[in-house]
Amino acid sequence: MITSPKLKLSGDRFTVTYLLDSPLKEAEHRASGIAVEQTIEFPVDLVDDGDIRTKLVGQIEKVAAQNPKQTRVIISYAWETCANELTQLLNVIYGNISIQPGIKVLDFMLPAAVDEVFDGPGFGVDGLRKRHEAQDRPLICTALKPMGLGAKELAGMAGEMALGGVDIIKDDHGLSNQIFAPFKERVKYCCEAVQKANQQTGQNTAYYPNITAPGSELIDRAKEAENAGAGGLLFSPGLTGWDTVNWLRSEGVNLPTMAHPTFQGTYVLHSDIGLAHAVQYGKLARLCGADSSVFPNYGGRFSFTKDECLSIKHSCLEDFNSFKPIFPAPGGGMKLERIEELISFYGKDVILLVGGDLHRGESISTASRQFRETAEQAASRLYPH
Amino acid sequence: MITSPKLKLSGDRFTVTYLLDSPLKEAEHRASGIAVEQTIEFPVDLVDDGDIRTKLVGQIEKVAAQNPKQTRVIISYAWETCANELTQLLNVIYGNISIQPGIKVLDFMLPAAVDEVFDGPGFGVDGLRKRHEAQDRPLICTALKPMGLGAKELAGMAGEMALGGVDIIKDDHGLSNQIFAPFKERVKYCCEAVQKANQQTGQNTAYYPNITAPGSELIDRAKEAENAGAGGLLFSPGLTGWDTVNWLRSEGVNLPTMAHPTFQGTYVLHSDIGLAHAVQYGKLARLCGADSSVFPNYGGRFSFTKDECLSIKHSCLEDFNSFKPIFPAPGGGMKLERIEELISFYGKDVILLVGGDLHRGESISTASRQFRETAEQAASRLYPH
Repeated sequence: MITSPKLKLSGDRFTVTYLLDSPLKEAEHRASGIAVEQTIEFPVDLVDDGDIRTKLVGQIEKVAAQNPKQTRVIISYAWETCANELTQLLNVIYGNISIQPGIKVLDFMLPAAVDEVFDGPGFGVDGLRKRHEAQDRPLICTALKPMGLGAKELAGMAGEMALGGVDIIKDDHGLSNQIFAPFKERVKYCCEAVQKANQQTGQNTAYYPNITAPGSELIDRAKEAENAGAGGLLFSPGLTGWDTVNWLRSEGVNLPTMAHPTFQGTYVLHSDIGLAHAVQYGKLARLCGADSSVFPNYGGRFSFTKDECLSIKHSCLEDFNSFKPIFPAPGGGMKLERIEELISFYGKDVILLVGGDLHRGESISTASRQFRETAEQAASRLYPH
Repeated sequence: MITSPKLKLSGDRFTVTYLLDSPLKEAEHRASGIAVEQTIEFPVDLVDDGDIRTKLVGQIEKVAAQNPKQTRVIISYAWETCANELTQLLNVIYGNISIQPGIKVLDFMLPAAVDEVFDGPGFGVDGLRKRHEAQDRPLICTALKPMGLGAKELAGMAGEMALGGVDIIKDDHGLSNQIFAPFKERVKYCCEAVQKANQQTGQNTAYYPNITAPGSELIDRAKEAENAGAGGLLFSPGLTGWDTVNWLRSEGVNLPTMAHPTFQGTYVLHSDIGLAHAVQYGKLARLCGADSSVFPNYGGRFSFTKDECLSIKHSCLEDFNSFKPIFPAPGGGMKLERIEELISFYGKDVILLVGGDLHRGESISTASRQFRETAEQAASRLYPH
């Protein structure tokens, strides 16, 4: 029998809303299991009735039938269980139970205490609008690719895109440090090309190199990018972990970041497991400190529905503790002819991502200019002053 | 139109076997999409017929009906696409397509070149057997918990477990740096307690602190653990990324590591998406350099089948390039009375993980001794010399 010490707790708690694939009665029982699994992971009958059992084990706040087969459960956890660490916070929200079928994280709510622990987005919507001097329109973004091109060829492409008025030019998420265009060389040439174009246009196009890398390399690459004059950084939390932006900041790197969704689709593809779209691409992206969040748009090469995309948009923009709103960045096989539709759907606070389609026109700079003008015109038509 | 440069490639390729939820004809079409999505992510009609198209785009090696509704597809990729990085290798194997429904990674094969790039497990089965002077029996393992206990209480527990003959005492994966038992203090006391017990018993019980932590803390914690005399490290690749062990090694930390499956269950729960059990808990764990791989055993609190568990065991132990075999470590609500069954099922090359059940006996040291003796006796009965 475990004798619980007296625990000094703040009383702050965070709550997680789970959807269980069980009817009400069974869900009540399962909820108790989750409350234990995610905290003490220990047989409760072997713990005395002191603080561990009464305060550390998750508390079931609400159990309500969603329909005859599914039940919504809200569990609260003592803030201290997460040790002020994003990794451990995620571990409590959805660690071991990620391996149990039929549990979906629909939402989570954090106490005010979180504001002193996690910085969240350093720039957010307002910060990026200021950097790009773009108050009344969506930002537009494209990617450097395909893999296989050399650093100078990619830089030439970046220059054209910048001349055409693209706000953010990111590396394709598959460009890391391949021999074709090694990171250092690529970043140097692309930064130079974009800076040169900016001098010509008077605009502030930003190049976002992809810093997704092994642990031993990631910070060096980010610093290298910052020193070379990159305007932001692309990273993939599915490969480097959700704590990446906090880590960058602790090392003094303070550039806008864009989260890429690669390697983490399994969290959202099925409705009965994982994280809700709004949690993964909205709340978590903000909590982790990303300033924009890439996700596959409806009607492209992927399968997200309009409702799922809308939920992501809301989660990026609506109130969430003191965290800045961030840009949703739908992409994945988008074409220029859909720009107006997308602005009408998402509103102005969106980063529109068009990749391969910019290479279909007579030149990349022309297609980029058309991208920018289409977005500006659609925005002022749809949202007149 | 993209003009492809002449690419200098080694000719080395890695292959991935995917299971698609499509009949043969449709799967052929989808396979082409995957080969592009995972490499150049660019419209192929906009790339000339040079090396990018012929060598960098994945090559479909085989398409074969698994049954009328599912098709097995093997795609090979140029080794250079992965840039000698584990993060980018995973990105090619299952990056963006993780967000497309109906694609499961069944297996992957790596070229001999990988041996010079990734070290893999530093110790593996033989190394751990040597460290624990245990040639002919399973290793036995338990966890320090519940969260809420102080460092000294956990250390007292660890001492008893070590006196009882447990080989590996790991932190519960939910112990990080909570105020109840801060990392530094916990590691100090637990290492001392286990060392003291080892002096008494003449054995080599190892304490594995949990180093899962934010990026800014992880290496420091690992070094602190190593300096305090920890015998190994527990980490959660789902929270810190699969590259963690390589990173530790690049920082000079050379302890055995144990991979914990928290926060990554969504990859295996559904048969139509994600990674096969053998890939996630076997091959990937080995490739990433873990010396043992924790997964939920059949018949506990989780849902894995016997076949899934067997596939994990095989993947941990069978030939895989030059990577050392590692210990499968089934756990999750295991009880002492199942030890013989588990040894009969998994064989001797297994780490048996019993957590809460060790607290049911008259004392932890007695239960630990019973755990050890049961395992030894069952092993010698089932596998006599």
